[in-house]
Amino acid sequence: MIPPIVILDSPQLGENIGFTARAMLNCGLKELRLVSPRDGWPNPAALAAAAGAGGVIECAKVFDCRYDAISDCHRVYAATARRREQIKRILSPRAAAAEVKAIRGDVQTGILFGPERSGLDNDAVALADAVIEVPMNSEFNSLSLPQAVLLIAYDWQMADEAAGAEIRSFGDLASKKKLLHFFTRLEAALDDSGFFHVNEKRPSMVRNIRNIFQRSSLTEQEVSTLQGIITSLSRRDS
Amino acid sequence: MIPPIVILDSPQLGENIGFTARAMLNCGLKELRLVSPRDGWPNPAALAAAAGAGGVIECAKVFDCRYDAISDCHRVYAATARRREQIKRILSPRAAAAEVKAIRGDVQTGILFGPERSGLDNDAVALADAVIEVPMNSEFNSLSLPQAVLLIAYDWQMADEAAGAEIRSFGDLASKKKLLHFFTRLEAALDDSGFFHVNEKRPSMVRNIRNIFQRSSLTEQEVSTLQGIITSLSRRDS
Repeated sequence: MIPPIVILDSPQLGENIGFTARAMLNCGLKELRLVSPRDGWPNPAALAAAAGAGGVIECAKVFDCRYDAISDCHRVYAATARRREQIKRILSPRAAAAEVKAIRGDVQTGILFGPERSGLDNDAVALADAVIEVPMNSEFNSLSLPQAVLLIAYDWQMADEAAGAEIRSFGDLASKKKLLHFFTRLEAALDDSGFFHVNEKRPSMVRNIRNIFQRSSLTEQEVSTLQGIITSLSRRDS
Repeated sequence: MIPPIVILDSPQLGENIGFTARAMLNCGLKELRLVSPRDGWPNPAALAAAAGAGGVIECAKVFDCRYDAISDCHRVYAATARRREQIKRILSPRAAAAEVKAIRGDVQTGILFGPERSGLDNDAVALADAVIEVPMNSEFNSLSLPQAVLLIAYDWQMADEAAGAEIRSFGDLASKKKLLHFFTRLEAALDDSGFFHVNEKRPSMVRNIRNIFQRSSLTEQEVSTLQGIITSLSRRDS
């Protein structure tokens, strides 16, 4: 199983980025990506907090845009404790790791974490194949960002020890880049055809539509088929 | 399963005692015992670091002697990362929790953690029924005391959940009748627009397209949305 990439979307405190690196390396994860870190980059506080995991910090890649940060992943999980009005599977860290382990072939996974104060926004969650929720005490759920990373990374590592269960074959999963391109095409075609006639509803409708396709774990071939469908249906005879 | 008692033997930093309380309460553990805390007790730094878990700190019991601290337990595990010259079983947190869960009847468990700098001494380890070792990256094993407590408490809590693989779904799943109606609409639109230009390939293409949508477990509302998309895209301007 390829180790997942940890992607921090708009992290706030450098110290938490450092602790995240330390939590990751304890569990054998080395690839960290940052989308628009609040205090800029490089950040000396992150390096200091990472202690022995400074190498993870030094190799971290920074992105301006979350699309770019996930584009080479085949599967993305959104780590969030907040319930959404989105139709999206919710998995424990263990179940998510088991799901990826059951896929035949190499799949690059990304795990997306939101900023400390607010967590992931709804658009980020809509980009994910599923949500990871760490099951905590319902009366006291107060994990810090690095603690959440630690627990999820830990279960990922443990999944490599446990025996694999069922093997599902999905064919070659589409990269997120290809999927995002399809979304852009579809939404442009829907704009052209007047589908989003109530403008305020567009963002939530876009999320709902993206979620329909995210849930299918589409292959490269299937995304091409869907592209072909959009092209064909929106062809004007005139 | 009775929740285990967390026992810190000679803890050093008040802050780590507070973070430990917070990690515990996140996982539903409430009983904390301290053996000879270095900086005395009560410790304001512990209360401050506990944040919302102050109740755990306020109810913590302090002992001069580790024997007294474990005397009412039926089973004690020693949490340590260091290998000993002792003939003692070494379990992962998960295996330890499963072991206790498998015991018939109520068993009070204690989990013993040593001071930050040195960990448990050999005499403390000798008091335990078994060692709990958190399996970490063999090249970088640098868990803090509260992180070790968090991972062990987490696996204890998870052992209480039946399966980690629960899948929750929202909304009302569409009836097959509604789904088949959507398929008919879509395929008719694709016929109209010339999508199936190689006639022999039509049956397998139809199956492939249907599979894309079958996998999503679509709700009634989502099928309506997809119907709307077909209608909108295939609208002719002329």
